Amino acid sequence: MSREPSVLKKRVAILGSTGSIGRQALDVISRYPERFTVVGLAAGKNTALLAEQRARFEPSVVSSGEDGAAGLLAVATASKPDIVLAATDGAVAFDAVFAAVDAGIDVAVANKELVVAAGELLFAHARASGARLLPVDSEHSAIFQCLRGEPVERVASIILTASGGPFWNTPAEEMRNASIDRALKHPTWQMGVKNTIDSATLMNKGLEVIEASRFFDLPAEKIHVLVHRTSVAHGFAIFTDGNVIGQLAPPDMRLPIGYALAYPDRLDDHPVTDPLVALGGALDGAATVLGFERPDVERFPCLGLAYRALREGGTSPAALSAANEIAVAAFVDGRIRFGDIPVCIERALSGVERADLSLDAVRAADHEARRAAALAVAECETTAGTKAIS
Amino acid sequence: MSREPSVLKKRVAILGSTGSIGRQALDVISRYPERFTVVGLAAGKNTALLAEQRARFEPSVVSSGEDGAAGLLAVATASKPDIVLAATDGAVAFDAVFAAVDAGIDVAVANKELVVAAGELLFAHARASGARLLPVDSEHSAIFQCLRGEPVERVASIILTASGGPFWNTPAEEMRNASIDRALKHPTWQMGVKNTIDSATLMNKGLEVIEASRFFDLPAEKIHVLVHRTSVAHGFAIFTDGNVIGQLAPPDMRLPIGYALAYPDRLDDHPVTDPLVALGGALDGAATVLGFERPDVERFPCLGLAYRALREGGTSPAALSAANEIAVAAFVDGRIRFGDIPVCIERALSGVERADLSLDAVRAADHEARRAAALAVAECETTAGTKAIS
Repeated sequence: MSREPSVLKKRVAILGSTGSIGRQALDVISRYPERFTVVGLAAGKNTALLAEQRARFEPSVVSSGEDGAAGLLAVATASKPDIVLAATDGAVAFDAVFAAVDAGIDVAVANKELVVAAGELLFAHARASGARLLPVDSEHSAIFQCLRGEPVERVASIILTASGGPFWNTPAEEMRNASIDRALKHPTWQMGVKNTIDSATLMNKGLEVIEASRFFDLPAEKIHVLVHRTSVAHGFAIFTDGNVIGQLAPPDMRLPIGYALAYPDRLDDHPVTDPLVALGGALDGAATVLGFERPDVERFPCLGLAYRALREGGTSPAALSAANEIAVAAFVDGRIRFGDIPVCIERALSGVERADLSLDAVRAADHEARRAAALAVAECETTAGTKAIS
Repeated sequence: MSREPSVLKKRVAILGSTGSIGRQALDVISRYPERFTVVGLAAGKNTALLAEQRARFEPSVVSSGEDGAAGLLAVATASKPDIVLAATDGAVAFDAVFAAVDAGIDVAVANKELVVAAGELLFAHARASGARLLPVDSEHSAIFQCLRGEPVERVASIILTASGGPFWNTPAEEMRNASIDRALKHPTWQMGVKNTIDSATLMNKGLEVIEASRFFDLPAEKIHVLVHRTSVAHGFAIFTDGNVIGQLAPPDMRLPIGYALAYPDRLDDHPVTDPLVALGGALDGAATVLGFERPDVERFPCLGLAYRALREGGTSPAALSAANEIAVAAFVDGRIRFGDIPVCIERALSGVERADLSLDAVRAADHEARRAAALAVAECETTAGTKAIS
């Protein structure tokens, strides 16, 4: 008695089910009742929505913030999922994700901090257990798709595209004192405040460069960034034979989420029938244009800081990510100027001693970097205050 | 005693070794003595170059035009190749290629007529024997690369790009009477006269649509053409989940030739290190732009004729291809106007009875279409003559 694997439903557990990625994942899953079954849901404080999700998807294991680490762990492993979607923010679910990976369970990773701060460890654990780590954000999904079926030793380099954010054409001086409102005007993607500010500084892309290094096992010099204002093309792989493979898709997170959940299959409810629309054009248009520019590393120092942290290795990416959180929060609170963000991160990165990687070292570096960044924020405030008085 | 498969050299036989594709293939092969060994070479009249190639590559079987069909057959099969490169023009090597396919030998196909006229048969034979058919021209190599490792049932449609040729922006009336010199000014590729005229009429792209239908088992309505003037991107695959994968490469035939010969590996001597250059930009440039437009089917009726022949099926593509040869030759000889080319093809296509596919039926349709096209050419000449006198 053998069963066809294709008729088995994929068992999905979601860490962070009430967040943006979690909700979009459930939207995708709800359209494919024959393909997926939700076996675990973990959320934080939004217990009302979690209760709704529980009633609708009937998972066997559910956990809210009150259940703490044990609850996340139960959702990630005791629900016996085929795949865990790691969609929490920050470090709260690190242990649960590592436990799933160690149990050989595939993980679709939407948690940037996890890959940036602890990526080397995470991938080492996955190699040991055989678990697959599947990227969820659009750029890494793009590269993952470009490398499908390819001999990985023939990858010469990859390109991640960046929208360039709201300040791509803004003079340096104007950027330095840019308001929060302007920084929040992202040209193509709808995202939360933190991610939108990260897009404005290009730190978002810097963190993605570090993630790409982990996902695709490439050194910093083989990961390029090009600015592509319309966010139609998300990534390219350049092969040693001179061929280039690229991926294009509308800016809709449900596509990379669906790709990761369905992998190695593809979903089938997004029929783009018009070729020009597929390349970003309009249905009634006659033409479409895809433009690519080199990033301006001088006006966007955060990109360089990310490359620096990647090259330094060890706990430096964790320190970078933590310091960035503090600096962005200080900017959003009106305590520092937009141009102070990279200054604070740079001071924190230089002030925290780089250590070899372990989960404890990551946590220590995170802690240290937040403290150093907070000090730098206070210094910037003082300087700004002095200036305002003089 | 086991040998690593990777250290085995791939045995290559080339039909048409002294032509443009054959020479470029030998150029690629000569740079990889550790990967390839040439076991068979077949050429036509250029015996001097064939003798040079024989001395340099030391194949076990060599055949020139004097040896006829038996010579081609010996090169394609008796040389015991792992892969045959079918790079002859016309129908001369059809039997040799079918024999190789029937023997389970992979064939890299650069012979357009073979796929256009006899593609359905050829792929049926390959499915029966397990031989792989690998596309060699740039657009089909692009799609082949885009579909690598993909679930083929999730392909919604594909896009072939076209440079648009020298008349892309030329008014219809001016096109009708365009000179041979103008028709031979191709914007991006260096090719022979026949191929360049086919690019000017877009019949080249029409024939590629038919080829794509055979290579990727897609109906006419799932094969789109977009004009892309700079010939950087060669093809795209649109998947049912909304993702699009595309391929880009410099316009150099050695890339698709090398890809087909090395498949499933990739070669490694074309290191493109600059990301902007990889997307068609200049090394000292700041930006690059890829533009795509819908083709103008009214000014380029040959494209529509090709879709019609594909939809009709049977021997219609063979008739189309044969009639096109006659019409292009008549234009190059100054006997008909540029605008008469599609007129002659249309008359031939309508005048030849469509038959079900067999190699004999293909040959008969080819013969009939040439006769019908020649009649149409004579009629056009008469009309033009009458007009000139009146």
